[in-house]
Amino acid sequence: MNDVIARYALTDRAENLSARAEGIAVGLTVGSWTDLPRATQERVEPFRGRIEEIRTVEAIDGHRVRAEIAIRYPMINLTDQIAALLTTVFGKLSMDGEIRLVDLTLPSAYLAQFQGAKFGVRGLRDRLSVYDRPLVMSIFKTCVGQTLDELGMHFREQALGGVDLIKDDEIFFHEAVPPYVRVKRYREEGLRIEQETGRRPRYAVNLTGPVFELKERAKRLQEAGADLFLFNVFTYGLDVMRELTSDRDIQIPFMAHPAFAGALYASERHGIAAHVLLGDLLRMAGADIAIFPSPFGSVKLHRKESAELIARLRAPGPFAKVMPAPSAGIHPGMVPLLMETYGKDVIVNAGGGIHGHPAGATAGGKAFYQAIEAVLRGVPLSEAAASHEELSDALAKWGEVRG
Amino acid sequence: MNDVIARYALTDRAENLSARAEGIAVGLTVGSWTDLPRATQERVEPFRGRIEEIRTVEAIDGHRVRAEIAIRYPMINLTDQIAALLTTVFGKLSMDGEIRLVDLTLPSAYLAQFQGAKFGVRGLRDRLSVYDRPLVMSIFKTCVGQTLDELGMHFREQALGGVDLIKDDEIFFHEAVPPYVRVKRYREEGLRIEQETGRRPRYAVNLTGPVFELKERAKRLQEAGADLFLFNVFTYGLDVMRELTSDRDIQIPFMAHPAFAGALYASERHGIAAHVLLGDLLRMAGADIAIFPSPFGSVKLHRKESAELIARLRAPGPFAKVMPAPSAGIHPGMVPLLMETYGKDVIVNAGGGIHGHPAGATAGGKAFYQAIEAVLRGVPLSEAAASHEELSDALAKWGEVRG
Ligand SMILES: [Mg+2]
Ligand SMILES: [Mg+2]
Repeated sequence: MNDVIARYALTDRAENLSARAEGIAVGLTVGSWTDLPRATQERVEPFRGRIEEIRTVEAIDGHRVRAEIAIRYPMINLTDQIAALLTTVFGKLSMDGEIRLVDLTLPSAYLAQFQGAKFGVRGLRDRLSVYDRPLVMSIFKTCVGQTLDELGMHFREQALGGVDLIKDDEIFFHEAVPPYVRVKRYREEGLRIEQETGRRPRYAVNLTGPVFELKERAKRLQEAGADLFLFNVFTYGLDVMRELTSDRDIQIPFMAHPAFAGALYASERHGIAAHVLLGDLLRMAGADIAIFPSPFGSVKLHRKESAELIARLRAPGPFAKVMPAPSAGIHPGMVPLLMETYGKDVIVNAGGGIHGHPAGATAGGKAFYQAIEAVLRGVPLSEAAASHEELSDALAKWGEVRG
Repeated sequence: MNDVIARYALTDRAENLSARAEGIAVGLTVGSWTDLPRATQERVEPFRGRIEEIRTVEAIDGHRVRAEIAIRYPMINLTDQIAALLTTVFGKLSMDGEIRLVDLTLPSAYLAQFQGAKFGVRGLRDRLSVYDRPLVMSIFKTCVGQTLDELGMHFREQALGGVDLIKDDEIFFHEAVPPYVRVKRYREEGLRIEQETGRRPRYAVNLTGPVFELKERAKRLQEAGADLFLFNVFTYGLDVMRELTSDRDIQIPFMAHPAFAGALYASERHGIAAHVLLGDLLRMAGADIAIFPSPFGSVKLHRKESAELIARLRAPGPFAKVMPAPSAGIHPGMVPLLMETYGKDVIVNAGGGIHGHPAGATAGGKAFYQAIEAVLRGVPLSEAAASHEELSDALAKWGEVRG
């Protein structure tokens, strides 16, 4: 059946559960049922939601229970905007007590309306011609208050360590040096580095500005030579990103930044599970790369949530796989754990772990590659460090993190 | 100073608080500080965040405390998108443990970039020529699966009770009867009713569709005769609404629906306080009417949050006041409490409280006016009910709710 199934974790009185579920199924689709005339019921029937499951998880006290309720919403109620999906399955309901949207099952007829990632893991690798190892991304640290020359120098310093990608900080909005100017300058730097090293570092520019100008801005940045876009999808809106990524004239991978997502996923009993938000919904929105807090670093996602999220980003189905970029507090001593957890199809994304290297950002990038190479060759980091100064310095500073 | 001040409620170890606050102030503005060269520090200085306050609220156990931290963010870091504000003050931070954005103080130089409500309370009253009493709004119940004639009939039935406003259900996306067609039909019905009763009911149409088509859709609906827009601002994006409301060619009040907002405000220790989200941010986004769960009905907002929210919607400052529409489970027996709580500048918004009236939707509307009139004249509802059948029936069904 062409139904969207939404699953909720909620707290209620045990004896309320079936009326609650029926209230959701009817209230969020046809509004009312029992008091409709028979003839109207017949016509309204195809729009009517159904209870898929009611499951009691645990008793809290004599009266209340934690439960899961799954509801089927006929997709005929929806348009192909993510706004329509979220308004229907977690609009009014999001305000109705202790309730969390923990899962979405989307039928293929529904998903067929979306394009998913235009590039995804494969397309991104094709663009970079790197197939056999994780990618390394470096984050600009201080972006504000810098001259173009300083920014260019910082780009070069990070890039010389060999990093594949360099991204703006997501909080970089100030436009003393406008994005077009940065894109051009960094491209020049990148081409120079390519001549020196044989590999061109790619730059992910923060796509910002008024919503209704974003398409034009994206196209202008593309013309200026942008390699990737960084996009604050949760503050701009999932449909905004979806419409940008599905625009035929925009042929550039999108990296979704999770800024603000914690406001939606971080509570255990409210909001939306991270694997739905940063997984299923970002896929529908067309993310090629999904940045999210790793379970290992400074800002953490729970290990189980992170595993489920990765499963969603890579789930088979109509969409290209999304490249995960587990972030926050990543340093070279974490590379074995990252690769053990995520495999080769992962972006090792570091700010402090590159810039904070005792010998500077170039050494920081090198240390990451030395760590990756060691893991690929099955050599322990401590052993590899013996013949690699940058890795050795990094391990001395940050140590090695084990699972 | 032209700083945005954000206040957070968070949990941390007591001895971490100042480093945590400093980490936020620096990390979310200039990225790093102590390791910057002196000359760079000087240039970066104007962008640098500052700690405004650190306050311990209560000890949780031997180690951790609940605390509030207020941070000053120089507005030079921001553009005038709400996305830039939220990404900066609650982007990465939203994912960093148990933390909630509980307040925003926005300097007038910052607010000057926004227009606020184009109509607000006064503009809305001017449009309706109703100044001396709350407005009454009725919500379409079953919208899907209905013919245009049936919808027209439902419109008329609701309108004949005298309601000022009739709105689509926010979950109404299915377009068998497209919004343009509804707008035209309801306008015809409205004009007919005006000839009969002297007052024309206004229709708030759900503005839906692809983001980048919304401006055109809004303008076409305006041409077709739309009176107001209902808008799912939290699933589409605050900037989307802001840019729609500030478009000079769109001269129609916007009613912001809170669908999905609970995913952001409902947790006590994560997300964003309701008065910031549904108050400050909706004002910046240009809402003329803000729908939110009343503290009295079926889906509730805490009383204190609701009072603070109202204060924000009405706060003096550069913007027109926003008309509050406390909703969910509103019936005529709640009118005295609503008016005592919110005064006259309020929209009494009802779905079930109109359609569920024992004598039908027309009687439902009448019962609300009878209740409002009673309150304005200082007459208890029970007394007014003696000479008003519709009110009497309503009170028999729902009773009177006291504070
Ligand atoms: Mg960052
Ligand atoms: Mg509704």
